[in-house]
Amino acid sequence: MANAIDFKVFRDLSYGLYIVTSKDGNRLNGQIVNTVIQVTSEPPRVAVIINKKNMTHELISNSQVFASSIIDESVTMKFIGLFGFKSGRDINKFESVKYKIGITGSPMVLEYALSALEARVVSQIDLGTHTIFIADVVNTEIFKEGSPLTYRFYHEHLRGKTPPNAPGYKSS
Amino acid sequence: MANAIDFKVFRDLSYGLYIVTSKDGNRLNGQIVNTVIQVTSEPPRVAVIINKKNMTHELISNSQVFASSIIDESVTMKFIGLFGFKSGRDINKFESVKYKIGITGSPMVLEYALSALEARVVSQIDLGTHTIFIADVVNTEIFKEGSPLTYRFYHEHLRGKTPPNAPGYKSS
Repeated sequence: MANAIDFKVFRDLSYGLYIVTSKDGNRLNGQIVNTVIQVTSEPPRVAVIINKKNMTHELISNSQVFASSIIDESVTMKFIGLFGFKSGRDINKFESVKYKIGITGSPMVLEYALSALEARVVSQIDLGTHTIFIADVVNTEIFKEGSPLTYRFYHEHLRGKTPPNAPGYKSS
Repeated sequence: MANAIDFKVFRDLSYGLYIVTSKDGNRLNGQIVNTVIQVTSEPPRVAVIINKKNMTHELISNSQVFASSIIDESVTMKFIGLFGFKSGRDINKFESVKYKIGITGSPMVLEYALSALEARVVSQIDLGTHTIFIADVVNTEIFKEGSPLTYRFYHEHLRGKTPPNAPGYKSS
């Protein structure tokens, strides 16, 4: 069926980079995500896509809530490394970052964050390796003005790599 | 439930801008979309979100196929106007643009296009005002090198407006 897929096309798609977090009981975790999008305006609703292997997937599946911080171009590779290349199953990512607990109980990361939102899942779809969570936005916070970090900026200026569990990862 | 939604947060989310097209029998149509995202790599799969009022929604719903051209920063407001602010129910948008019919029968717009993909819908979710279509990518074409147009660039450099049927539209 698929006869001529050149993965270079996917590099022309544009994304931001976000720290999506959740909680389950006392457990907190979060990870970098490039797919947070607004899907409707009335009601204010977003979608996020998470790899099933990730601990954040487990937390969102259980609690049905998450937060997303929108990070800016001043972000460091150390911070990216913490949320993008380490697992919450090995370390507690929230020991070393500033955050506040939101109305859903999810931790909103404050470092390098322009703003944040919290959302409650209303439906989810199994995409095979990933799940897409559709969620109503129930809280927003604005922290500062700045330039939102894009995936392109990350690759071109921070010389960032794509984590293996990201939707856009292609081993080759 | 929603107690403090500041829509300014949504402006910090990053998007590209794409011409999503489809066909149904002899009818062709297309529109500007800011939400084309890759959702999994294996299989190569994308999601697109379309307002139910739009003719392109009707075509994709019927034919279960679509194409998406990734446009670049050289795009003109006249071209944006054709695909973003006019309805295929009033005019034939394809009378005045260069395109090629792909393997799905969808028209791939060639003007201002860096690349294009074609996809077949595998599932769809009703989001209220919009539908999200999840689709397997079955064809890709690369036309040229360049800088993909982002929603931010459109607003800041082309002084673009948000069409009423877009996910991010907010009348106020």
